[in-house]
Order: sequence, then C-alpha cells, then structure tokens
Amino acid sequence: MDPLRPPALDPATVDERRGSGYPEPFRSRMGERVKRMLGEACGLTRFGVNLVTLGPGGQSALRHWHTLEDEFVYILDGEVVLVTNDGEQRLTRGMCAGYPAGSRDAHHFVNRSTAPATYLEIGNRIEGDNAFYPDDDLMWCEDENGAYAAHKDGRRY
Amino acid sequence: MDPLRPPALDPATVDERRGSGYPEPFRSRMGERVKRMLGEACGLTRFGVNLVTLGPGGQSALRHWHTLEDEFVYILDGEVVLVTNDGEQRLTRGMCAGYPAGSRDAHHFVNRSTAPATYLEIGNRIEGDNAFYPDDDLMWCEDENGAYAAHKDGRRY
Repeated sequence: MDPLRPPALDPATVDERRGSGYPEPFRSRMGERVKRMLGEACGLTRFGVNLVTLGPGGQSALRHWHTLEDEFVYILDGEVVLVTNDGEQRLTRGMCAGYPAGSRDAHHFVNRSTAPATYLEIGNRIEGDNAFYPDDDLMWCEDENGAYAAHKDGRRY
Repeated sequence: MDPLRPPALDPATVDERRGSGYPEPFRSRMGERVKRMLGEACGLTRFGVNLVTLGPGGQSALRHWHTLEDEFVYILDGEVVLVTNDGEQRLTRGMCAGYPAGSRDAHHFVNRSTAPATYLEIGNRIEGDNAFYPDDDLMWCEDENGAYAAHKDGRRY
C-alpha cells in the first residue's frame, strides 16, 4: 500500500508525546501515557483529536471537568474504567463517553487492566477554558506570564 | 457487563439515521449510509461526532469543502477510497484524514469494496458555515425561510 498523503494520515507516522503539564505528585500518576496529536498533524485548529495509548496503571488525566470545552472519547482497543461523580464503569472497544462543557460531572479513565488501552480523545479549542479537580489539591491561576499550577489555597507549586 | 450509564454510551443504543438533505439526483448517490450521532446523544453542542456505516457503493457525502468547519475522519473498519483534488487513495482501519476549514481541497469517501466500512466523522459546529461542491451542480442559498438547494445558476431544486 502506498504511503498516505495529505489530507490523509497514518497515525503511526505522527510523533509520540509523553509527559504532562501537571506538577508532581500528579504527573507521575499518569503512568505510561502516550499521545499522538492527529488533528494538529492534519492542520486542524478548532478542535483537537488525540490518539492515546494508556499503559496498565495509567490515567487519562486527573479527574476533572471543563468550563468551556466539550470532550468526547471513543475506545479503540483494550479496556478502561471511567470514574465520574456517580462511581465507576468499565468501557471496552467501541464504547464512548461525552462530557458537555460546564457539566460538573468530573471524569477520567484509569487503566486497571494488564494490557494497554487505546482511545481517541476529542475536545474543542476555546480561549478562556478552565478545568477543576474535585479530588486533588490543584487549580490553575493566571498572572502576567500565563497560567501556573497552584494549591487550592493559592500557593504556587 | 452492566449497561453503560451517562456520561458513557454504547453506540448500539443510539438511533440510526438514514437519508440525506441533498436533492435528487444527489441523495441516491449516498447509497446505504447509516449515521449514529454519538456526540449529540451525549449532549455535546460544540462539535458533532457521528459513527457512520457506509455500504458497498455508498458515498460519505458529495465531494465538498467547508468554509468554517474543521472536519476529521477515522476509519474503524473496512476500507474506503478518499477522493480529493489530488486524486484517490485507499484508507483502511486505523487511518485518518483531516480537512481544515477554508482549505479548498474538496473531499469525500467512496466505498468501492464489497463490505461495509465504518468510520467516525467529527466536525465543529459554527454559524455561517457554508460548503461548496466542485464536481456537482449544487449550492446552498438562503432566503427568509432558511437554506435551500440550488443549481449553480441560482434556480431552486
């Protein structure tokens, strides 16, 4: 098969991104989490589409909700546990979830299985969006240099 | 496995939509095309996510480009031919494509295989978006009652 050319794309050709913008001790909790930013690789700016592989023990994010961003996830392979305000449920290949902007139902995936899980995550890009973390002592604040991570009492990390 | 509860969703529980807003002779060209509007079923408003099954001989849409809408497609199963200004290429499971708003590279999928193909299609929702169809005698116009389909010389369908 010939290599794909734009506007098509083979995700395997897109750079892997590891790491997280969270301060410790939160960053390490994400575990083995690898993202390929497919939407950006295609030149999209209005929403992001990431192909994510989450190793056993990894988390998609800290449990959070967004003020202005709709999010959607679709499981491609493996299984994850979705944790929301209401508790836990197991999602497998072909299942999905959607989180409307402003819904205070904080959510994340945890991979409690022994195999990697792969999913697509999609979110619209919008200025002024903020995220809140009901389980963790973290919030984002802004000064003249941009956003920074703070404890909930305001002290910087 | 227990039934999923919001914000999670099993796509099999979402209504199937058939048909097309195109006038004839274009509507029939879409063939066996079934959509499940997953994003809308989850209450999302800022972008749409549709799970589409395209039967043999079907088309995703007339070949088109959008003025204000980013689009992204990800192949879940089967194979499709992506047609763009530059020609044709075959996409199979795990491949994707992205169409930035305002790029005049008109695109669609055709299923030339003998099996159904399944893919996710994602697009941001934005007022004032328009689409253009370089291969077909179709455009959308607007009067006080809303949008209508017209020939390129302005006559209504």
